[in-house]
Amino acid sequence: MNKTVSPLTLTSLQDIPLIRQGDNLADILFASLRASGLSLQNGDILVLAQKIVSKAEGRMVDLATVTPSPRAFEIATQAEKDPRVVELMLRESREVLRVRVGAVIVEHNLGFVCANAGIDHSNVSPLGEGPVERADEYVLLLPEDPDHTAAEIRAQIKAKAGVEVGVLIIDSHGRAWRNGTVGVTIGLAGMPGLVDLRGQPDLFGYTLRVTQVGAADELAAAASLMMGQAAEGTPAVHVRGFPYPLREGALKELIRPKEQDMFR
Amino acid sequence: MNKTVSPLTLTSLQDIPLIRQGDNLADILFASLRASGLSLQNGDILVLAQKIVSKAEGRMVDLATVTPSPRAFEIATQAEKDPRVVELMLRESREVLRVRVGAVIVEHNLGFVCANAGIDHSNVSPLGEGPVERADEYVLLLPEDPDHTAAEIRAQIKAKAGVEVGVLIIDSHGRAWRNGTVGVTIGLAGMPGLVDLRGQPDLFGYTLRVTQVGAADELAAAASLMMGQAAEGTPAVHVRGFPYPLREGALKELIRPKEQDMFR
Repeated sequence: MNKTVSPLTLTSLQDIPLIRQGDNLADILFASLRASGLSLQNGDILVLAQKIVSKAEGRMVDLATVTPSPRAFEIATQAEKDPRVVELMLRESREVLRVRVGAVIVEHNLGFVCANAGIDHSNVSPLGEGPVERADEYVLLLPEDPDHTAAEIRAQIKAKAGVEVGVLIIDSHGRAWRNGTVGVTIGLAGMPGLVDLRGQPDLFGYTLRVTQVGAADELAAAASLMMGQAAEGTPAVHVRGFPYPLREGALKELIRPKEQDMFR
Repeated sequence: MNKTVSPLTLTSLQDIPLIRQGDNLADILFASLRASGLSLQNGDILVLAQKIVSKAEGRMVDLATVTPSPRAFEIATQAEKDPRVVELMLRESREVLRVRVGAVIVEHNLGFVCANAGIDHSNVSPLGEGPVERADEYVLLLPEDPDHTAAEIRAQIKAKAGVEVGVLIIDSHGRAWRNGTVGVTIGLAGMPGLVDLRGQPDLFGYTLRVTQVGAADELAAAASLMMGQAAEGTPAVHVRGFPYPLREGALKELIRPKEQDMFR
């Protein structure tokens, strides 16, 4: 072979402040890239944690404003969860797949299957400024249209820096049969969700039949490693060396159609 | 924050030859690291594709030697697959979860749920030397005990180079609800499968309740990105900058116990 392959390099961005509703994430990313000693090149990808996108979009909800429906009360009893949070899960979802103590598995309005509609209690504060009274009365919903937000950030970066980058918005999901969460894509722009290798020859010249690579999800998992989950959280990661060509892309590439779902 | 975080860097190893039964993978990795201009440091991780481990272990099966059982014939009809391959899937598995055209979803003897028991038709040649007659009559089973193989490679690296590295063996799996395959762990040594962040405070001092990160699977996905799937396949990846402390680990950390499985 002997060809030289560029490494894939993922760097956590430093100095990202606590995000508030209305913040311009592209500006914040630029400042953080500078603080981290990084520049942007064509083909780089910026990966953002769902949480900062949701906060910038003002997706925080005061639970005192939520009135649970009878169905929310019923599911909340089964799941041993706050009925107001369950009410939000139902509003954010198309279908409930499973309920057990601690977990309500849904098909989210955004199309994917996930636990608790991705509603997050941790790292949420109404002022974005550390502990306040009633802080545990607030939750954070997923972004309204993460593909759209990713495209907007991508367009702003192009306008401000003249470079074509991919933008990936990720969350951490559990898996049906494996322990531990992994980073997965919830929105993207300017990069492929799936990479289709069907029809390409393998090493011995046979045609690969079914290989579609979840390339964006593989990168989401990689970036999630570099974000941490707790106090040290760094909610944005710079990626250089993504090995597939960038193109327009969308979350829906990664969503298995319901009629092909064997596990619902 | 202002702390400097090391990047995570993944580099595909060059010049890995076609692997044959009995090959010493540690020696091959050393040669390839040299050819790739890389050295090993304490804390580095080497990620290997299942395929080269299986080949080194001689896990290739000539389908002419396989006699399908009545059950294999029955499932083969439903799945539209070769009954001899289905027979091998049954031998390699504890339980069949779903059958549909093109896919038999099983709990593999190694513990995880996957399609077709991980049996691979592509890039398989009995001589390891390119196209031969009847090459499509051979399939490759998963390694017999990937944790053990990973530990052996790790021990050889320590003996030969005096460094403590992690070793991760990965395969590509489909997901229940998402399109596209992603790299996942099938064996590991000297690194964590799961990283438990439960009990750590989040940014605002609340205790995170349920966060267990599938760190090995996140790295598996990242490395899979750098392996390619087709003719350009590079079956080993060098990793520097894994952000969690290395420790002893095992595949079983990542396997959800059957009694906690909501989707079987």
